Amino acid sequence: MSKVLVIGHKNPDTDSIASAISYAYLKQQLGVDAEAVRLGNISKETAYALETFGFEAPRLIEKASPEVSQVILVDHNEKQQSVDDLDEVQVLEVIDHHRIANFQTNDPLYYRAEPVGCTATILNKLFKEHGVKIPKEIAGLMLSAIVSDSLLFKSPTFTEQDQAAANELAAIAEINAAEYGLAMLKAGADLSATPIQELVSLDAKEFSFGDIKMEIAQVNAVDLQDILGRQAELEKLLLQVIEQKNLDLFLFVVTDIINSDSVIIALGKEAERAGSAFNVSFDNNSALLKGIVSRKKQIVPVLTEALS
Amino acid sequence: MSKVLVIGHKNPDTDSIASAISYAYLKQQLGVDAEAVRLGNISKETAYALETFGFEAPRLIEKASPEVSQVILVDHNEKQQSVDDLDEVQVLEVIDHHRIANFQTNDPLYYRAEPVGCTATILNKLFKEHGVKIPKEIAGLMLSAIVSDSLLFKSPTFTEQDQAAANELAAIAEINAAEYGLAMLKAGADLSATPIQELVSLDAKEFSFGDIKMEIAQVNAVDLQDILGRQAELEKLLLQVIEQKNLDLFLFVVTDIINSDSVIIALGKEAERAGSAFNVSFDNNSALLKGIVSRKKQIVPVLTEALS
Repeated sequence: MSKVLVIGHKNPDTDSIASAISYAYLKQQLGVDAEAVRLGNISKETAYALETFGFEAPRLIEKASPEVSQVILVDHNEKQQSVDDLDEVQVLEVIDHHRIANFQTNDPLYYRAEPVGCTATILNKLFKEHGVKIPKEIAGLMLSAIVSDSLLFKSPTFTEQDQAAANELAAIAEINAAEYGLAMLKAGADLSATPIQELVSLDAKEFSFGDIKMEIAQVNAVDLQDILGRQAELEKLLLQVIEQKNLDLFLFVVTDIINSDSVIIALGKEAERAGSAFNVSFDNNSALLKGIVSRKKQIVPVLTEALS
Repeated sequence: MSKVLVIGHKNPDTDSIASAISYAYLKQQLGVDAEAVRLGNISKETAYALETFGFEAPRLIEKASPEVSQVILVDHNEKQQSVDDLDEVQVLEVIDHHRIANFQTNDPLYYRAEPVGCTATILNKLFKEHGVKIPKEIAGLMLSAIVSDSLLFKSPTFTEQDQAAANELAAIAEINAAEYGLAMLKAGADLSATPIQELVSLDAKEFSFGDIKMEIAQVNAVDLQDILGRQAELEKLLLQVIEQKNLDLFLFVVTDIINSDSVIIALGKEAERAGSAFNVSFDNNSALLKGIVSRKKQIVPVLTEALS
């Protein structure tokens, strides 16, 4: 059987990297020549998780073909979030926990999506279904993904199934999930020294609602001033991105992981409508969204409804 | 929890009906107020299976809303094969074994597709994953679906997983799969008295390849003359459908379930290209496709490649 790449989304977060490594491992155990790869830079948070459990970052790729003709997608399905030449290869499998959009195949495939908080929670089931034991280090990585996607078990996307998986994985990894998780989030959330350029692309995703093209970037912070203290510089860069990519809206979401709120900075010609969607008005292009921490569950659905 | 409809595709085949009934039963056992429904007439084959195992046909619906706001799709995902007002309701789950196309959601969902020969094979796994015992009669229906989709275990779509499921289900249902299966196929394949109108819509699906809009209908026959003896009448009706629906191609596939071949009748302005795709030339608009029995695995992919 020829080689298969296991690919997480662009601007990879910890779930995308951890799930690519973990699922590639599972497929290898099942006899598939699978390799985890990544489509972008590793965040500080992900680097902390990889180092803690003794993994190298997956290899960075820009294209899948002609190296391989078949890929497996984890933690995403939308074409614009995937490898640029996705149309040139066959998608054999998708393991994901997002909505389905801009995704199409010519052939039947294995597609496993569940409405849970993290891809790693689904992978935990797949290891069991195939009767493959999860190694201690892989369990640590998978737990890191759940901590990251749930902001230490606090996000509204976090389900009982994620909790059960986190408990099982913490036991296999032999670590205290709360202690380790906070340390990992803090490692990722110290953004005081991170260049603005990097903040904007760290975890940015493109979306299309009807005719409206937008990008939503999200960063987690312990001290919001790490970012808001550099707002002028940030806005200058966002305006450049808007012009380059011809966006109607750029939403930059700074999530306070201690208080579970977010400050959004909205630029672009649809910014006012984004404010209306959340019933907030902007002061200096920014607004506080109380209790909002999840892009997927609390931001994208509201904008889909308001802008479509 | 409010009521959920479990819906198979238009022009329902035995898998669509059996899977809707079986999955609605499983969801009920899990505490969901689920009801199986259908989007079209029951075939003779399906009627034979329902009667053998003591089921009524599911209720016929034309629209899902406003009766319900949430649905589960089985054995399909493409919008044009589903309930007409699919956009008005939320798709909670999909259980399917086809390619993914023309499908999009606003929210995360449970999506379980596997590249196997029959939806019932996936349902057999889901019963086990949820620890719910399959009743004898439901097992009989699920086995009927596998027999139907695999033309009694002969189609190239038939996998080891389907074989394993069929064995398990035959044991639960306490029937001889080969004997029962042949009787069921024969009950469905006696088309001598079936009106042409019904033959054309019995198991017809619409597809779009690039700008080309087409419909592929398939019927299984023991005696091909049941249909080919009425070709003039059939073509007249196909031309009407082409005009009404503005199709570029209508492919009518008559599958010989004893010899595992198919005769196709192709009409419409893209008919020649369909012939080229299969390396056959048409005589009186028809051609024999040796060894071709599966629309999904042997016909749709070839046309996708040739016409896209």
